[in-house]
Amino acid sequence: MATPDGRRVDLNADLGEGFGTWRLGDDEAMLGIVTSANVACGFHAGDPTTIRRSCAWSIDRGVVIGAQVGYRDLAGFGRRFIDVAHEDLVADVLYQLGALDGLARAAGDRVRYVKPHGALYNAIVTHTDQAAAVVEAVTTYAGATGEALPVLGLPGSEWLRLADEAGLVTHAEAFADRAYTPEGTLVPRREPGAVLHDPEEVADRVLRLVVEGVVTAADGTDVAVAADSVCVHGDSPGAVAMADAVRSRLAGAGIGLAAFAGPGGDG
Amino acid sequence: MATPDGRRVDLNADLGEGFGTWRLGDDEAMLGIVTSANVACGFHAGDPTTIRRSCAWSIDRGVVIGAQVGYRDLAGFGRRFIDVAHEDLVADVLYQLGALDGLARAAGDRVRYVKPHGALYNAIVTHTDQAAAVVEAVTTYAGATGEALPVLGLPGSEWLRLADEAGLVTHAEAFADRAYTPEGTLVPRREPGAVLHDPEEVADRVLRLVVEGVVTAADGTDVAVAADSVCVHGDSPGAVAMADAVRSRLAGAGIGLAAFAGPGGDG
Amino acid sequence: MATPDGRRVDLNADLGEGFGTWRLGDDEAMLGIVTSANVACGFHAGDPTTIRRSCAWSIDRGVVIGAQVGYRDLAGFGRRFIDVAHEDLVADVLYQLGALDGLARAAGDRVRYVKPHGALYNAIVTHTDQAAAVVEAVTTYAGATGEALPVLGLPGSEWLRLADEAGLVTHAEAFADRAYTPEGTLVPRREPGAVLHDPEEVADRVLRLVVEGVVTAADGTDVAVAADSVCVHGDSPGAVAMADAVRSRLAGAGIGLAAFAGPGGDG
Amino acid sequence: MATPDGRRVDLNADLGEGFGTWRLGDDEAMLGIVTSANVACGFHAGDPTTIRRSCAWSIDRGVVIGAQVGYRDLAGFGRRFIDVAHEDLVADVLYQLGALDGLARAAGDRVRYVKPHGALYNAIVTHTDQAAAVVEAVTTYAGATGEALPVLGLPGSEWLRLADEAGLVTHAEAFADRAYTPEGTLVPRREPGAVLHDPEEVADRVLRLVVEGVVTAADGTDVAVAADSVCVHGDSPGAVAMADAVRSRLAGAGIGLAAFAGPGGDG
Repeated sequence: MATPDGRRVDLNADLGEGFGTWRLGDDEAMLGIVTSANVACGFHAGDPTTIRRSCAWSIDRGVVIGAQVGYRDLAGFGRRFIDVAHEDLVADVLYQLGALDGLARAAGDRVRYVKPHGALYNAIVTHTDQAAAVVEAVTTYAGATGEALPVLGLPGSEWLRLADEAGLVTHAEAFADRAYTPEGTLVPRREPGAVLHDPEEVADRVLRLVVEGVVTAADGTDVAVAADSVCVHGDSPGAVAMADAVRSRLAGAGIGLAAFAGPGGDG
Repeated sequence: MATPDGRRVDLNADLGEGFGTWRLGDDEAMLGIVTSANVACGFHAGDPTTIRRSCAWSIDRGVVIGAQVGYRDLAGFGRRFIDVAHEDLVADVLYQLGALDGLARAAGDRVRYVKPHGALYNAIVTHTDQAAAVVEAVTTYAGATGEALPVLGLPGSEWLRLADEAGLVTHAEAFADRAYTPEGTLVPRREPGAVLHDPEEVADRVLRLVVEGVVTAADGTDVAVAADSVCVHGDSPGAVAMADAVRSRLAGAGIGLAAFAGPGGDG
Repeated sequence: MATPDGRRVDLNADLGEGFGTWRLGDDEAMLGIVTSANVACGFHAGDPTTIRRSCAWSIDRGVVIGAQVGYRDLAGFGRRFIDVAHEDLVADVLYQLGALDGLARAAGDRVRYVKPHGALYNAIVTHTDQAAAVVEAVTTYAGATGEALPVLGLPGSEWLRLADEAGLVTHAEAFADRAYTPEGTLVPRREPGAVLHDPEEVADRVLRLVVEGVVTAADGTDVAVAADSVCVHGDSPGAVAMADAVRSRLAGAGIGLAAFAGPGGDG
Repeated sequence: MATPDGRRVDLNADLGEGFGTWRLGDDEAMLGIVTSANVACGFHAGDPTTIRRSCAWSIDRGVVIGAQVGYRDLAGFGRRFIDVAHEDLVADVLYQLGALDGLARAAGDRVRYVKPHGALYNAIVTHTDQAAAVVEAVTTYAGATGEALPVLGLPGSEWLRLADEAGLVTHAEAFADRAYTPEGTLVPRREPGAVLHDPEEVADRVLRLVVEGVVTAADGTDVAVAADSVCVHGDSPGAVAMADAVRSRLAGAGIGLAAFAGPGGDG
């Protein structure tokens, strides 16, 4: 896992998550804030035109494109666990990687990292077989194209463990607006206080996380949290404002924003 | 347009056209017959696992992989015209090219030509705007990957005309089991005698087409038909038998089978 | 065709057009304005949960539920013509009618009229075969359930002509925010001035349309336009405000709003 | 649960499981064998035209139509568990019930029972919340239409327990070609010998099951198995032959075949 130096960090957000006439989030606003764009690949969101536009905008703004692969589930937005067989999940992820990479290359760059979406992201924290399938797809794709494809995920997850074992560069992700347990894991969404809503509090927490490598856990104690990248959201006006507050706080403290992957990254 | 020499020709067929539990055609049988495989890309048929398997089988048998791009219409198998806007069709084709290319590369080769499917194939014979959109997608993808991507289609079509104008290598296709008008166009399917069913007759016609460059039209006259590649079908046991008869007849006459694209092609 | 009396009219709008996580329009706001809700049926928009909620809200507000049947095209939101075969279109419409009717009945009422959506609506103005297929589906469904199912559409369309011939009650629709030609047809969307944006102008036009049965055409002349129902939109805050202006203007002039179908209608 | 009398039984099979150009199983052959048809509803299989045809054929042959509701998963044929939220599963099942019922009524009858498909069938053996959601959908639909809607399932399942509690008539199902444990549950498919392949052995077992209410378990002991209906398959020529052998064996022993639901049933 790459080691952040406390003076710069990556901000990532989900983009390209509309589908046809339906929009979700304000891609253009977020592209003025983040350094890495997790672009949907069409299985849980993202029609080709929307994806292509998000890729072009990302490149225009110097934002690095990552593949936000997910379950094939438009109706559930990829937020429902699906018990996909290993072979099928490998092929599904390869398909999505190729599709996004084609659109990204047509726009002038390429897919430079992988961050699974929604229920797949959550599943592969502990689901060894599905984690292994996604890792197999990424290593296969990287091998076939001859280009590095680092991965982003939760520290301690099967996903990062197996990716590391397979020789992929891994990057740890923290969440700007989520409460942490004293053990450094996320407080489950269903528990009270799991999601933070105050932009100033969130900005303070992210600053401390980046500079000191710690966050205040839900019980008030300090807990060490590694983060090469901090995930912010942009699916509502309030979310964009919060992401903007995080960026401003970091800038005010002299923390640089830099993508972990891409031409200037170490991916 | 490439010029066949009368001593060799390409045989192409549609492959990878199942979806999930549903199968269509006998891919393994056809891969022992044809030299080029038009592999479905997921929009009208082809789940990622099926596509990946078809790519691997094609490579094992030395069959060249082409992208059988189509309309997004699983329920209609891509056989219904859809009035897709230019920008969307470009993105849809780019998405499909990238997806198939990713799976083909994962299997050890890459997409080496493009042949649109079904209603899209028929539409771009005359629909200039949709033809231009598919051409734009192919030139954009070829440019982005830096690799040649020749196209296959009906002589005289807007598709081949615009592809040629755009600098793509084009290849003319003839149909083994279809009747031709005295003008060299296909007799529409709805007319009696439009589709031929006798394997021996079909094999004879293909041989003459390849050696002499003519077929007997529906009115009994001879008509010149250019063909770098002959399309055969494999979606029924009878279709496979007919394709096999065509291959045997050509072999018996000393006509070599050779893909127009791929490492050994001129694409 | 029913004859409006100049003292009351129906207002209809499209509802239930989200899909999964994606929202479109403000259903709750519109249900305080209109008297008839064209609820999406799942083929171009509308997941079952969204549809069910729209049905429940419609019933709570006394708004009559109609079936907004469309092409199977989530990616295109049903706005692209699809060349669906007659038999398939009949079955597609029957499927959608049954699905929506089941959810409407579960919510306490039922589907009480049919208004096709988007490209299907436009196609069956002139496409006799597709119009006949939709009519066949509606008459078959009405016959099978033993309940009246009036239809809503454009005066002069094949859709209303064939529906009338088949014994269905038909209702003429006008559009609040569209310009009309001197012949009483809609100015095509691609022409300048085709869509009106000023709420006050639109409200004035609708009032005159309802009271006098005429609108000012694009060339300044008066043209007679029949309207049992006026279509308003709710897919943006501005659209909701315009719909509200129309309702207020009608109320201020003593024009009652009354659904053409439903328990209190003549459908 | 209804009590069979040992002199008659229902045979059920899955039908209408094609999608568009793709076929699965031989519906016409199976309709000469079974008394109840579990017709796919479009979420895991079954386009509207295929469904409509299966309904018409079922009615022609006097076979009772049941709703084979499933997860929304064409790519996985409904055979993968999906963690659908309660509210969404209720709406998904209502939507499918209404859609199939509309097509069944258009063909002259109606949906007369419910048997979930694939992974949903398996999940609700033990998944209380999903079982409750399906039961809620069925009771809501039955209540809204005022018609009985008995359910078919595995004895001892949460599905039948909750359906019974909710006042639905329940029917127990046994599987012709599956091995049973000494406890009367199915031997999991992944274990050797879980699926039986010899038509004569299967026919013998079904006869004993119907007449004596027992089957020989995998360990050779006898175990009591209740069965109002026996499930047979028709997705291959061998499966159809086995189903035919079962029917013949029962007929030869004077066992009548009678649907548990429908005009002549007790549903």
